Amino acid sequence: MVQQETLNRVFASLADPTRRDILVRLGAGPATISELTEPTGMSLTGMKKHVQALENAGLVVTRKVGRSRQCRLADAPLDDAMAWIGFYQRLWARRLDGLDAYFTLRPDRTDPKDPDT
Amino acid sequence: MVQQETLNRVFASLADPTRRDILVRLGAGPATISELTEPTGMSLTGMKKHVQALENAGLVVTRKVGRSRQCRLADAPLDDAMAWIGFYQRLWARRLDGLDAYFTLRPDRTDPKDPDT
Repeated sequence: MVQQETLNRVFASLADPTRRDILVRLGAGPATISELTEPTGMSLTGMKKHVQALENAGLVVTRKVGRSRQCRLADAPLDDAMAWIGFYQRLWARRLDGLDAYFTLRPDRTDPKDPDT
Repeated sequence: MVQQETLNRVFASLADPTRRDILVRLGAGPATISELTEPTGMSLTGMKKHVQALENAGLVVTRKVGRSRQCRLADAPLDDAMAWIGFYQRLWARRLDGLDAYFTLRPDRTDPKDPDT
């Protein structure tokens, strides 16, 4: 099942262009906070904040290496986001008139009979 | 080319579970603001605010029909988001060590020749 909280955090991270840039940069390989900061003109503190948000969203993993903090992409970080968008696009394309699929996404909502579309 | 502002707004909308629910509901067919509101226990004003945000993000289109406002999904609303995530996932999967692809995503950053994707 799709975790709503995870999706909230992942999409919120993707809504920030700086965080998208960091993900794309880390797509080319791991980097320290300093290496991420250098080309941006941003402060180290500012960059740490962005990386922390990406870490909280489960998109990035960091670990201390000597005096540096090494950052890399988490495994398959955007799979949940992709799955949600893909599901939604299929739903939309097919114009499902039942909401079975909806209640698959939100099983907590209950009673899918007669969605009255 | 991917519009950064569009991506910011689209992903920000998707970060909100209520807005995701609205999109999924509209995937089953158009609905008025009242129809969207009814199953949620939300106020009409609250729902209007969510729909307005989705409209600003280009995900939803609304029009006045009599005293109601009819809402429907925009055409191919999440294509930009999907394209970005898809591009990013390919980049990540391939671990491109050049940043050519990065500069294809951010053409304002310099020299997009030979994107080599």
